[in-house]
Amino acid sequence: MIKPVAEKIILGIDPGTNVMGYGVIKVEGTRAQIVTMGVIDMRKEGDMYLKLGHIFQRVNGIIDSYLPDEMAIEAPFFGKNVQSMLKLGRAQGVAIAAAINHSVPITEYAPMKIKMAITGNGNASKEQVAGMLQRMLHLDQNDMPKFLDATDALAAAYCHYLQMGLPDTGRKGPKSWKEFIASNPTKVSKRKTPQSM
Amino acid sequence: MIKPVAEKIILGIDPGTNVMGYGVIKVEGTRAQIVTMGVIDMRKEGDMYLKLGHIFQRVNGIIDSYLPDEMAIEAPFFGKNVQSMLKLGRAQGVAIAAAINHSVPITEYAPMKIKMAITGNGNASKEQVAGMLQRMLHLDQNDMPKFLDATDALAAAYCHYLQMGLPDTGRKGPKSWKEFIASNPTKVSKRKTPQSM
Repeated sequence: MIKPVAEKIILGIDPGTNVMGYGVIKVEGTRAQIVTMGVIDMRKEGDMYLKLGHIFQRVNGIIDSYLPDEMAIEAPFFGKNVQSMLKLGRAQGVAIAAAINHSVPITEYAPMKIKMAITGNGNASKEQVAGMLQRMLHLDQNDMPKFLDATDALAAAYCHYLQMGLPDTGRKGPKSWKEFIASNPTKVSKRKTPQSM
Repeated sequence: MIKPVAEKIILGIDPGTNVMGYGVIKVEGTRAQIVTMGVIDMRKEGDMYLKLGHIFQRVNGIIDSYLPDEMAIEAPFFGKNVQSMLKLGRAQGVAIAAAINHSVPITEYAPMKIKMAITGNGNASKEQVAGMLQRMLHLDQNDMPKFLDATDALAAAYCHYLQMGLPDTGRKGPKSWKEFIASNPTKVSKRKTPQSM
């Protein structure tokens, strides 16, 4: 079997101190498909170090299992208060350390940027992001997770894929098309106008 | 050679986003001595992930070299703003991950608690903490580091040692003696009163 030219595995992480989402997509050529998504649930761990240990072990395990080429992390730059930001920073730091531990390059995206990339609206709800991902990645309703942290993580991975300049040909929204033209000027014939615009 | 009964290596860490201090002490019976101290200087690393990677690798390396039984970390619970707390949280998270990676138990201490344990004054300056450590651990002036982050980390390790209920017999302050009585009630004869009280 010949390995496709541009196969790439992207791990998306939505770090949280109680529930951490993860999503893995596989990009072959210009097509993206879901590999897995889920959550790391730390709500039963009473101790903060057990929570952080849980994150470190699970993210290491996910990287060992799916061998991502790159990691995309949803990273808010502001929060309610210094206490919550310190906790979030620790959770992020532990997930980042797991990636560094495996020499996986990290890119971070602000939540608004991810929402904008997926839905075209930086203020979209988590449900809207999940709905758009469901259509774009052809997910069955039964595949949709209980926790929206999982779809948020998948959105981070998908956002990173879009930033790589390899938009999924199955995606038709004008936002995506505009991005496609911007990132692939030589592939677009100047004579035709896309039907969807 | 017979191994002493209560030998223990304690690694102290003072996490920062630009300079991270570390200090290692060795406790044999009721005596503590310095093993090493120093700083991890990230000021030349432009990228935040390079800084965090640097911390992860160095803390892993220090743990591999000195095989600490426990790690004590100086952990402020408040800061200037949410931005600086997120950065600090990430630096802490990466150092914590290195300890978790080696199954080293972690205890954190607020800066004020460390200052109080070392000098008897929760508002002591870094210089006062360094000076007290110099006397307690019999450090030569030439051994004193350029960065007070190193002595702060050493202070975290020493504070943890005091919390373990094994105060250095060379230390005479009433604070330490009161702690000694509180944590070792059976070892103190009720007939005598210590000279120093």
